[in-house]
Amino acid sequence: MIYDFQYLNKKITLVILFIFPFSLFAQSQDSITIKSIFDEGMEHGKAYDNLNYLCVNIGPRLSGSSNAAKAVTWTAKRLKEMGADTVYLQEVMVPHWVRGEKEQAKIISKKDELAVPVCALGGSVATESAGIKAEIVEVKTLAELKQLGESKIKGKIVFFNRSMDPTCINTFDAYGGAFDQRFYGPSEAARYGAVAVVIRSLNLRNDDYPHTGTLFYNDSLPKIPAAALSTNGADLLSNWLKGDAHLQLYLKMSCKALADTLSYNVIAEIKGTKHPEEIIVVGGHLDSWDLAQGAQDDGAGCAQSMEVINLFKSIKIKPERTIRCVLFMNEENGAKGGKKYAEIAIAKNEKHIVAIESDAGGFSPRGFEVDGRDTVANVCLSKLAKWKPLFEPYGIYSFAKGGGGVDIRGLKENNAVLLGLVPDSQRYFDYHHSSADTIDAVNKRELELGAASIASLVYLFSKYGVQ
Amino acid sequence: MIYDFQYLNKKITLVILFIFPFSLFAQSQDSITIKSIFDEGMEHGKAYDNLNYLCVNIGPRLSGSSNAAKAVTWTAKRLKEMGADTVYLQEVMVPHWVRGEKEQAKIISKKDELAVPVCALGGSVATESAGIKAEIVEVKTLAELKQLGESKIKGKIVFFNRSMDPTCINTFDAYGGAFDQRFYGPSEAARYGAVAVVIRSLNLRNDDYPHTGTLFYNDSLPKIPAAALSTNGADLLSNWLKGDAHLQLYLKMSCKALADTLSYNVIAEIKGTKHPEEIIVVGGHLDSWDLAQGAQDDGAGCAQSMEVINLFKSIKIKPERTIRCVLFMNEENGAKGGKKYAEIAIAKNEKHIVAIESDAGGFSPRGFEVDGRDTVANVCLSKLAKWKPLFEPYGIYSFAKGGGGVDIRGLKENNAVLLGLVPDSQRYFDYHHSSADTIDAVNKRELELGAASIASLVYLFSKYGVQ
Repeated sequence: MIYDFQYLNKKITLVILFIFPFSLFAQSQDSITIKSIFDEGMEHGKAYDNLNYLCVNIGPRLSGSSNAAKAVTWTAKRLKEMGADTVYLQEVMVPHWVRGEKEQAKIISKKDELAVPVCALGGSVATESAGIKAEIVEVKTLAELKQLGESKIKGKIVFFNRSMDPTCINTFDAYGGAFDQRFYGPSEAARYGAVAVVIRSLNLRNDDYPHTGTLFYNDSLPKIPAAALSTNGADLLSNWLKGDAHLQLYLKMSCKALADTLSYNVIAEIKGTKHPEEIIVVGGHLDSWDLAQGAQDDGAGCAQSMEVINLFKSIKIKPERTIRCVLFMNEENGAKGGKKYAEIAIAKNEKHIVAIESDAGGFSPRGFEVDGRDTVANVCLSKLAKWKPLFEPYGIYSFAKGGGGVDIRGLKENNAVLLGLVPDSQRYFDYHHSSADTIDAVNKRELELGAASIASLVYLFSKYGVQ
Repeated sequence: MIYDFQYLNKKITLVILFIFPFSLFAQSQDSITIKSIFDEGMEHGKAYDNLNYLCVNIGPRLSGSSNAAKAVTWTAKRLKEMGADTVYLQEVMVPHWVRGEKEQAKIISKKDELAVPVCALGGSVATESAGIKAEIVEVKTLAELKQLGESKIKGKIVFFNRSMDPTCINTFDAYGGAFDQRFYGPSEAARYGAVAVVIRSLNLRNDDYPHTGTLFYNDSLPKIPAAALSTNGADLLSNWLKGDAHLQLYLKMSCKALADTLSYNVIAEIKGTKHPEEIIVVGGHLDSWDLAQGAQDDGAGCAQSMEVINLFKSIKIKPERTIRCVLFMNEENGAKGGKKYAEIAIAKNEKHIVAIESDAGGFSPRGFEVDGRDTVANVCLSKLAKWKPLFEPYGIYSFAKGGGGVDIRGLKENNAVLLGLVPDSQRYFDYHHSSADTIDAVNKRELELGAASIASLVYLFSKYGVQ
């Protein structure tokens, strides 16, 4: 488009909105503070530079890796530089799984063979060192697997090929609808004697990236190797199988679990001036899958949580309650950091009033989801309904019940309200857990809007509490 | 993130919402139809494939070019294939400006010279064939230019270097705030004797793409060459100027205006079953700048408008009122297509009840803006307020007054309500009018959501009218 002069009207409307937003003077003051948070974040924010460093200078940060250790050291240093009152590390033992050599997969027919893009699922065991080769049984569901039973499955490689549902508007619903293949598929296939599992990558678009992610091994069943094929690879395999039911798949993986390793949650605080004992947590997870720079998952959430500290310090807001930025370790394959944090919080009898996690990508923010014990969650929701007009000028329209986040879940027991930032979800699974999750997948302004949204909400909670 | 089982709750909520959305049976029926529109669009939609063809197989489509002619022929063919009742072309004479050889710009100091990325503004005259070289005066505003006056400007190249305001949440506001430099800058600089103008590209991020766009020559003033530097190039020039006020800029451009050329608006209809005389227009513009594939600007809007025809035909909705998809020619440098369309509509005394334009990119839809004469616009807004719950499940929360779109503006005189699709605006100016505006800049799902949103609104208007 060229330029529609009528857009000018909106600018004027916006100004009026900030001057006379409601009849309440308090909300008018709050709208001014919130505007200053957004202005600072969009004009001088550090979120994107921090994320860029984490992605480009450090890179993939799987729990137990040397990069994860570097990320701990560097984020702690940055949080100090940005002016946090206290920065400390919280010890946590984490799994240490390594992928080993680049995996190989080949479709083998009598006439031909063809390599397909593949990666081991996180936590998988290796194949035999020479690789394995077996016929393939394609299924769409765990129920179908059960129906086929041992007679059809034994000695085969099970190929889970159910697509994520493109008609789900929220892509996390589509993920939830396909996730069981990756998580439960390997052990359920082993139950009927399968020798390995390959799944269709949990990705809504057709491309050549295999997407990893954690699996669950049932200890009472044999552990078999499990891998993800790219969506294009899965389509190809499925098409070949239509013409030749006796195709074989060759799979070679050398991944393994090493001994658990000492790692850390990174914690930074701004002490509350009036109610320092009341804690507001804001966090993301510092670990990422080994294939990815972990830009959207979840470098974005870390950079945004760090930015809350930066914005409060830059515009000199002295919060009445304590703000604690927590970069959790090991969300991806164990969630040990989140569990450890909650365990210590409860043991110390700390009073967490609210915890906000950003772990759905650094896309344009749409709203927040609220979780928690019924009473506190409902009280919080009615508070948020009152605050909603403060957020609408920034495109934040939705405050609803939903999931808070994996890392903060344990704080429910501490009677905290849990909130999850809800960004636009359309592009998330294009990148998630794959080598496509790089800094190029992140738009600077979208990331900054999310950071400022969280900081604004933290500001309101720090002033008014949660009750 | 791994997977938060609590997300499952949302899926159930969504289902309930569709079954019992409101007490009104009509809205319940409408919510079912709207869901079927979204389902079809997200699962079997043709918008992305059509856009991909337009971008990759045809490419840049500046008015008067052979590519623009190819785009007319191809979209008309596709609209027939997708089942429109009638497809026809509407003649319109359009400007035919050509860029000529790749432009050159060099910063020249006594010691050094450095090339910077540059492109002619659309409609600019050429430099002398050997190029021109002159000292540079950097200004931020037209007011500053006026203050400097002829004594400081004469014989110089004026460099307009005001950034788009990063604190504007809607990036179109930031564009509106910087647009005068490109549009009025060249003639205003000529008023004081400048020999050429370069502007900072209208882009919110720092990169190496020069962004073109139309300029306005005041016929009573000399026409001087005008170009855009990339944002990085503009920063570099500004920094060099701080150290050496006598820097020169060399600029060479060979663009020119050829004779006006015959082109076409592409029009496709589905005839209304009950009120065929009441017309609902849905459109985008088929021309693009010559530097770009015109994916976001405005191939996306064309693909979405074509998709309305496809969705109605695919799910066999027979609209009560006539739906007319119009792909307007020449929005970028003259808006002749839009003007011609309105002129003929008024001359024929056609009854346009509503016109919807998509010309703000194929990003996740956020809402619609409404324009029109006061009475009809207000009636429409109260109708939209009632329909809002039908759109919220799709992330469409905002129906407000604003600009409809450049191409449909003339229909205001026809007493039509004008609506503009409002997608998330954060990424738009990264691509706008530059060679970065390619199919890779478009996310399939985001594009499809926009198409289904427009189709759903068209469905409601076709059933209930606008009054």
